[in-house]
Amino acid sequence: MKLTLHPDRLFPAEERTRRIARGLHEGVRDLPIVSPHGHTDPAWFALNEPFPDPARLLITPDHYVLRMLYSQGVRLEDMGIPPLDGGPHEEDGGAIFRLFAKHYHLFRGTPSRMWLDWVLGEVFGCEEVLEEANADGVYALVDDALRRPAFLPRSLYERFGIEVLATTEGALDELVHHRALGESGWKGRVITTYRPDDVIDPDNSCFAANLRRFGELTGQDTLSWQGYLEAHRVRRAYFREVGSATATDHGHPTTRTANLPEADAEALFGRVSKGGSSKADAELFRAQMLTEMARMSLADGMTMQIHPGVARSHNPAVASRFGPDKGGDIPLQTDYVSALAPLLAEVGNEPDLNIILFTLDEDTYARELAPLAGHYPALLLGPPWWFHDSPEGMRRFRERTTETAGFYNTAGFNDDTRAFLSIPARHDVARRMDCGWLAQLVAEHRLGEAEAHDVARDLAYGLAKAAYRL
Amino acid sequence: MKLTLHPDRLFPAEERTRRIARGLHEGVRDLPIVSPHGHTDPAWFALNEPFPDPARLLITPDHYVLRMLYSQGVRLEDMGIPPLDGGPHEEDGGAIFRLFAKHYHLFRGTPSRMWLDWVLGEVFGCEEVLEEANADGVYALVDDALRRPAFLPRSLYERFGIEVLATTEGALDELVHHRALGESGWKGRVITTYRPDDVIDPDNSCFAANLRRFGELTGQDTLSWQGYLEAHRVRRAYFREVGSATATDHGHPTTRTANLPEADAEALFGRVSKGGSSKADAELFRAQMLTEMARMSLADGMTMQIHPGVARSHNPAVASRFGPDKGGDIPLQTDYVSALAPLLAEVGNEPDLNIILFTLDEDTYARELAPLAGHYPALLLGPPWWFHDSPEGMRRFRERTTETAGFYNTAGFNDDTRAFLSIPARHDVARRMDCGWLAQLVAEHRLGEAEAHDVARDLAYGLAKAAYRL
Amino acid sequence: MKLTLHPDRLFPAEERTRRIARGLHEGVRDLPIVSPHGHTDPAWFALNEPFPDPARLLITPDHYVLRMLYSQGVRLEDMGIPPLDGGPHEEDGGAIFRLFAKHYHLFRGTPSRMWLDWVLGEVFGCEEVLEEANADGVYALVDDALRRPAFLPRSLYERFGIEVLATTEGALDELVHHRALGESGWKGRVITTYRPDDVIDPDNSCFAANLRRFGELTGQDTLSWQGYLEAHRVRRAYFREVGSATATDHGHPTTRTANLPEADAEALFGRVSKGGSSKADAELFRAQMLTEMARMSLADGMTMQIHPGVARSHNPAVASRFGPDKGGDIPLQTDYVSALAPLLAEVGNEPDLNIILFTLDEDTYARELAPLAGHYPALLLGPPWWFHDSPEGMRRFRERTTETAGFYNTAGFNDDTRAFLSIPARHDVARRMDCGWLAQLVAEHRLGEAEAHDVARDLAYGLAKAAYRL
Repeated sequence: MKLTLHPDRLFPAEERTRRIARGLHEGVRDLPIVSPHGHTDPAWFALNEPFPDPARLLITPDHYVLRMLYSQGVRLEDMGIPPLDGGPHEEDGGAIFRLFAKHYHLFRGTPSRMWLDWVLGEVFGCEEVLEEANADGVYALVDDALRRPAFLPRSLYERFGIEVLATTEGALDELVHHRALGESGWKGRVITTYRPDDVIDPDNSCFAANLRRFGELTGQDTLSWQGYLEAHRVRRAYFREVGSATATDHGHPTTRTANLPEADAEALFGRVSKGGSSKADAELFRAQMLTEMARMSLADGMTMQIHPGVARSHNPAVASRFGPDKGGDIPLQTDYVSALAPLLAEVGNEPDLNIILFTLDEDTYARELAPLAGHYPALLLGPPWWFHDSPEGMRRFRERTTETAGFYNTAGFNDDTRAFLSIPARHDVARRMDCGWLAQLVAEHRLGEAEAHDVARDLAYGLAKAAYRL
Repeated sequence: MKLTLHPDRLFPAEERTRRIARGLHEGVRDLPIVSPHGHTDPAWFALNEPFPDPARLLITPDHYVLRMLYSQGVRLEDMGIPPLDGGPHEEDGGAIFRLFAKHYHLFRGTPSRMWLDWVLGEVFGCEEVLEEANADGVYALVDDALRRPAFLPRSLYERFGIEVLATTEGALDELVHHRALGESGWKGRVITTYRPDDVIDPDNSCFAANLRRFGELTGQDTLSWQGYLEAHRVRRAYFREVGSATATDHGHPTTRTANLPEADAEALFGRVSKGGSSKADAELFRAQMLTEMARMSLADGMTMQIHPGVARSHNPAVASRFGPDKGGDIPLQTDYVSALAPLLAEVGNEPDLNIILFTLDEDTYARELAPLAGHYPALLLGPPWWFHDSPEGMRRFRERTTETAGFYNTAGFNDDTRAFLSIPARHDVARRMDCGWLAQLVAEHRLGEAEAHDVARDLAYGLAKAAYRL
Repeated sequence: MKLTLHPDRLFPAEERTRRIARGLHEGVRDLPIVSPHGHTDPAWFALNEPFPDPARLLITPDHYVLRMLYSQGVRLEDMGIPPLDGGPHEEDGGAIFRLFAKHYHLFRGTPSRMWLDWVLGEVFGCEEVLEEANADGVYALVDDALRRPAFLPRSLYERFGIEVLATTEGALDELVHHRALGESGWKGRVITTYRPDDVIDPDNSCFAANLRRFGELTGQDTLSWQGYLEAHRVRRAYFREVGSATATDHGHPTTRTANLPEADAEALFGRVSKGGSSKADAELFRAQMLTEMARMSLADGMTMQIHPGVARSHNPAVASRFGPDKGGDIPLQTDYVSALAPLLAEVGNEPDLNIILFTLDEDTYARELAPLAGHYPALLLGPPWWFHDSPEGMRRFRERTTETAGFYNTAGFNDDTRAFLSIPARHDVARRMDCGWLAQLVAEHRLGEAEAHDVARDLAYGLAKAAYRL
């Protein structure tokens, strides 16, 4: 079957609306890509070495792909995932790719299919939809391309028209690749993001060791509350200086926040830093730290992102056999209204602070998130995240948030991916869906066409730059 | 930019469907406006004095406008909101209007934009979309018009084709303006609604004083349970007699209801009427009173409205500095199934009782509200409320309630506004969206076109009259 | 008004999309009906006697119809429902039918209207939409037809193109009709489903008696934990052998599951089997039994269905006067993520096990169900159920589940009805809606048209056969 990336893809079928969408899209199609939040590996750009074979580049690290195949009975070992106990697993990239191709029909109607079609068709010039019969040929085509200079990380970064690309590093990361990038003279802009979960979450099994290392890296007494807070300040400054960070990111199981009296916070830290803290203390400490991080953001100007509400590693058998990020994460119902109240009472009215909220619980879009972001100066809504970073997910986001929060309390698009090659495909989906939504507003005479052009540019480019201060 | 109110606005873009929608809309466009629930000021119609300047008429009292501007860093003082401590605030209507105009792009895609465009274009004949550059001119145009007799409250009431307009007054209100209206000979029908929250909610800081006043007004011993209930009966009769009320309204934080044994209810009243009641007692008392009010409605025939589920004044800094209704109210997740069970067990099977349920939690439309209203004779669904009184909100309401509750368990449209000038715009949006939804059913052969005409009339006019007994 | 079943009904109005939908539908319209879950009476097919009069066939047993009429003040007695106390009720089928016809407009926009129009028009050749004026004529037309051989149950089964039809029987049912069917030589395939709620739910008022009877039927000591479990195994085998069952079904108030240590499970059974168990024990026992049933399904290959989350008989007055299933059931908010964790940890990774999840809480589609089914090999998503078995409900199901779970983690369509005559109408709605959704994907270039044809066949036919092993 011929692989076609139709120029009208994702636009509404209705001709009047499609024509408007096409016009809006022409105005934003070639804007630079601003990628303010994601998980690519800075080593790629620092070292600029060829990517590994097609399977290890496109399939093995993609938890969207793993989850779908696993759900239909494919063993993770057969997809090349090594068991933690060192047990056998497929090591032949070609075999992994063939197995994937055999199941490619499972992705019909999913965004993974759109992203992979784009990567194969647009990046590698593949002319047929992947299937078992052509898997070896496609594999060879991609494998061959990856050895060429035009497919080195920096070449693709430039070919993709990326203006800035943020990676995400833990608080203990030494940012060696970002440092190297800064010294390299390459004009690409790859920046880091401060993600301190591993020194904030008492439920992390390495929390005590992490605190010690945090102290070593910052020269602070991270077993005292004030020293611990100061260590964050030192480290945030380091991330800004060495990694050009403009933002922090926080992945918490809930959105609970707290704003304890100083002495209570100190006592709480005393308990959790000793290790073996109770579930309640761990949750309260994470809650307190969101408020502390917000206060630091107010002081140092870093945009704060909150990604809450996932039951990580819901499948214990998969987690214990293969480790995290293998497709077994499941969203949770999430409360924002009462959970965020302590933080908002402290910093919510600050117009110079940007706190970007994400959710995997779409029910909160219209009921909680749009009303909160449509009132508090400090809040912005992040784009549809993870399971909802898809055409229907994007449509629901606009349908449910725009009427209460408008467009200007949203933060533009994030691709939020480690799948570097699909970054343009993901921005392409977002731009097309936003243009389709704006086209509907225009076609229904809810918005003027000239205004829609302005908004389209803001959604594709301006809002992300402003929200992340890029 | 030219301001146009396109005759096809809000109709689906698809031509076949649009044509049907247009036809349906022609049949309802000119029907009188029935406004059975809202918050306009009866003094306007009783006194019939000119409205104040454009900013104080259109902007300062509109919490939709305030919330959006505040969310983008505009200070409420600069929008003319006086701090409670008497601090400085903008007093020049022109300056307020200019500041608003400068931020008018924030409202793109929101219902506020549609309502304000309609008011400026249709009521005042403004020919350009508001922007900073034309703000002074628009202000002058509106200011000039407001001094003319054609723009007095009664003139606009007549021009708008209003058949009946309900205001909302607290139980302690003496209804002087309604009395004056009744004696005035003016043929407009402005009626009141009995909203007794301030004598029902023990969490109200004036509760004790309100009970005393309630006793004075009714001649009842409102510190005894039976006297207190009788005071409600007396006052409901007063609202019917002096204010032509046909309905009551109840704004509770939750939908919890209770039906306590007589002695327990009396003991509970004994505790809360003393003041300083616990949170649990306050909630239980409100719950009990919903059932008491329903019993009284069964006796006196008044339609009962329940507007639950808002975290009022979520932002303590704004509330303490400026007071309530400044845009800081946030919806709450709301349960209906178990919460309403006690009330429904008592009166839910009464076919002659109308209890109209509203929600800010759209997730309950398909799961709870449509199933409840599609079974209990006493229940009707109110139209999309507040944050959801918008094109997308209305679309979701019909999509999620019609298949289970049908059209005839819904209660027609409410504008629920204090923004008198926008009342026709709000009914216009509702009529257009309902015609669009019906047109889709017709175009997809899910409903006959002749039947759709019947339904359109009922949604625009008949159902509201029946539900509120007007 | 002429009754028309338009050939394009339910297809999207947009012409490009409609044309694609029409093409897809042509490919599936005439596929056999696979009805793997429902509530028809096996006696109809075993005895093949004429159906009763039109009212008792089409109206009295339909709780969708009863709920809507009751919600608008029609008394259930007047619809022919006998009060449990033997009080008077309408017994004249013609009068019942007339009363129903008089209120037929209440069903505008509901699936009941589509199903009944189809039954009257397609099965009986009625040419006018039902209304009070033609009620007697329509009644006579249907009544006359029902006396003819072509309208006997087996004739209709064949005329409808049914390939297999599953009924649902309790664990204590002796399957006499299924046995008779097996011995009859008739080529129709009417199979049973093992629904053991009455021997699993300690809150069932007959639980103790049911356990005794369960022991008699199986020859096991059903007052011992091991004997009780063995009785289930014996009975499941009986249902497979005598009733050709391939599936079990479980209607629990929640999705809570448990996987207790053997001794704890035994002790729990000891407590609940004595009767008078606490609410907590009853819930825990149901939870444990879901996991036990899943283990048995793994052993015997029966597909397991879970239908959770209904407040049965929410209206106590109706339940006590008329009994269950009279329209007073209301959906409940339902949790899957934590509730299913114990069961999934035990059997979720089994690729040869099929557990089909249903929901009445659509909010869980995108947030919980699609992520779970898109990861766990054992899970499949059942089709939109009960209140959501409707055009809009089906649209929401595909919009919210496809992008995360794809099509191949769903289980095809269920009609889930006791209204035998409407079975083809229900499958027709599902096929049309799925073709419309696929057509939208094709029109928006999100799926190839050839692939869409494959998927359409799978949704209409293949997936149900695979999921239920038919």
